[in-house]
Amino acid sequence: MKTLNVDLGERSYPIYIGEGLLDQGLMCQHIRGKQVLIVTNETVAPLYLARLQASLGEHYQVDTVVLPDGEQYKDLTQINTIFDRLLECRHNRTTTLVALGGGVIGDMTGFAAACYQRGVDFVQVPTTVLSQVDSSVGGKTGVNHPQGKNMIGAFHQPQCVVIDTQVLNTLPERELAAGLAEVIKYGLIYDAEFLDWLEENMDALNAREPEAMIQAIYRSCEVKAEVVAQDEKESGIRALLNLGHTFGHAIEAHQGYGQWLHGEAVGAGTMMAVDLSQRLGWISADDVVRARKILLAAKLPVIAPDNMTANDFMDLMAVDKKVIDGQLRLVLLKQLGEAVVTADFPAAMLEQTLAAGDQLGQITSA
Amino acid sequence: MKTLNVDLGERSYPIYIGEGLLDQGLMCQHIRGKQVLIVTNETVAPLYLARLQASLGEHYQVDTVVLPDGEQYKDLTQINTIFDRLLECRHNRTTTLVALGGGVIGDMTGFAAACYQRGVDFVQVPTTVLSQVDSSVGGKTGVNHPQGKNMIGAFHQPQCVVIDTQVLNTLPERELAAGLAEVIKYGLIYDAEFLDWLEENMDALNAREPEAMIQAIYRSCEVKAEVVAQDEKESGIRALLNLGHTFGHAIEAHQGYGQWLHGEAVGAGTMMAVDLSQRLGWISADDVVRARKILLAAKLPVIAPDNMTANDFMDLMAVDKKVIDGQLRLVLLKQLGEAVVTADFPAAMLEQTLAAGDQLGQITSA
Repeated sequence: MKTLNVDLGERSYPIYIGEGLLDQGLMCQHIRGKQVLIVTNETVAPLYLARLQASLGEHYQVDTVVLPDGEQYKDLTQINTIFDRLLECRHNRTTTLVALGGGVIGDMTGFAAACYQRGVDFVQVPTTVLSQVDSSVGGKTGVNHPQGKNMIGAFHQPQCVVIDTQVLNTLPERELAAGLAEVIKYGLIYDAEFLDWLEENMDALNAREPEAMIQAIYRSCEVKAEVVAQDEKESGIRALLNLGHTFGHAIEAHQGYGQWLHGEAVGAGTMMAVDLSQRLGWISADDVVRARKILLAAKLPVIAPDNMTANDFMDLMAVDKKVIDGQLRLVLLKQLGEAVVTADFPAAMLEQTLAAGDQLGQITSA
Repeated sequence: MKTLNVDLGERSYPIYIGEGLLDQGLMCQHIRGKQVLIVTNETVAPLYLARLQASLGEHYQVDTVVLPDGEQYKDLTQINTIFDRLLECRHNRTTTLVALGGGVIGDMTGFAAACYQRGVDFVQVPTTVLSQVDSSVGGKTGVNHPQGKNMIGAFHQPQCVVIDTQVLNTLPERELAAGLAEVIKYGLIYDAEFLDWLEENMDALNAREPEAMIQAIYRSCEVKAEVVAQDEKESGIRALLNLGHTFGHAIEAHQGYGQWLHGEAVGAGTMMAVDLSQRLGWISADDVVRARKILLAAKLPVIAPDNMTANDFMDLMAVDKKVIDGQLRLVLLKQLGEAVVTADFPAAMLEQTLAAGDQLGQITSA
């Protein structure tokens, strides 16, 4: 087992990463009351809920709530279901909520914990690559609104995160690829050496080889933890983590949440950010090819859905959280391994990228 | 105009108190973006919305949302109405929400601000005595759940609070009394000298004389600010502010939100806390009479509704936020001007208080 400490002063917490952690009761040392509510979904519950309950032993009042599975259910209605259960079972403000599932369950459980009695503890047990490397780290919680993804939420740090790589054996292929989109992102924005390592190990990751998987998750969490520790409330550097996300969120919103997986949309969105970075002369055509190749190797889409126009993108991106006083800001690459947030690009170049369509999948080496 | 600074480190904010402040645009120096959403209700809007809008001048995009009036509408549905409006008008994360109304509007606007895009600025313009001395100070925000008051919420500090005592001229009598319940509370828990002053000035306060009103509001905010500054997240001393509230919340929940005003329920609840404090031998029969007299002078109820049994109270108090691992804690008086939070009282004495019924209104001097 590897342990990573996310350093946030009095809100610091550990991330445990290893094989078979689900059964080891590691979270018990982080539960301060006698009540626990496990929040999970209909897909994960039959696979892992009983094991997690067993790992808690007999010391707690353990209640459970099983939500429907899918991004389309990430809304205030489900949050209310969690509140109903907490009150029905008379949980008080020393309760601990445990999120057992992917990013949707993690974000909703964290948000419910942030708001129940104005804030109670929570623990993350992420069961997808995406949530293990992204939404379980950094304290972002929330739900979607019909007019925008993650528009409602709170910053709320977990007491600990328990990542068991064994649970990935039941993960569908598409979900694996979607998670790898975020792993690749960390290489692109922050660590060129990690990008090299990923290029060499993509076959092992596709085959879910434990050693490679632990290493990829560990380094991804480490990069994210470093960035978040510098900028907990997302005023500056943390925004770099959103490479491909402004385009990606527009894709998700346009297609309807749950149609494109978050990581798939980020894959195509990353390719758009890479394309615009090249048009600005910041990265080379060879860099673009490298980015495209590794995304394709992870079995990710690299072009936006063909039913989306440039106008669709502009409309949907206008409500992005990185818009400040009407100005759209994007995360772009200065070079492979270094990103910036900027509003300083010609509108015409952005339009060219939005109009490029399936050319983004066809760029050949210079 | 008097200005009080609530000292919370980087989340410190000023409270401005005076006559006619509504028109003076004091909040503009605390608005950092170009967008403002004023949240108010159907009662307050026709009286003061246009004046507040005019005070902001031409520098901002000012949108408004008018909610139905009443505690029964303090729920997630109304919060969603605020989110809908924010997204419809494309407000970004530099927006400022302005709460124009009583405690319900303040709590909901603050909670919406805490959650919109994971936290935006807000300003309070409280229009009732209750919200001026209580819910506008201290950063507590939230909504009710059918099974408990304020069960869902967040701690979120405003950028500033603007208290215009002129707006109290349109306040209904019952609302005035309900606000004075909280004013009296500050005397009972923290400041015996202020209690003396209130006994002398209750007629002036009932007559809404500006000078007395400003003084009462200023000292109440000052006491609350002192307490909150010591304990922002309510782990200890801040709980003293809940004198009468555990009983009062049970009354509100039992009667249905909006039937008894919060301050009316706190009035009767305070009398129950006073009664139990005397049974414990902490305060004298004369102290009980003083408490009863000042509550009655403020035109407040001092006995619980006659349709409530001791069992009703016990059931409803079991979900109180001050319950820790099954133990009910109450705020009781050590003497007039000094309160404690304690679970250390015989259950039988609490039962006697709950069974005392209208005797609480009939206690005579020793």
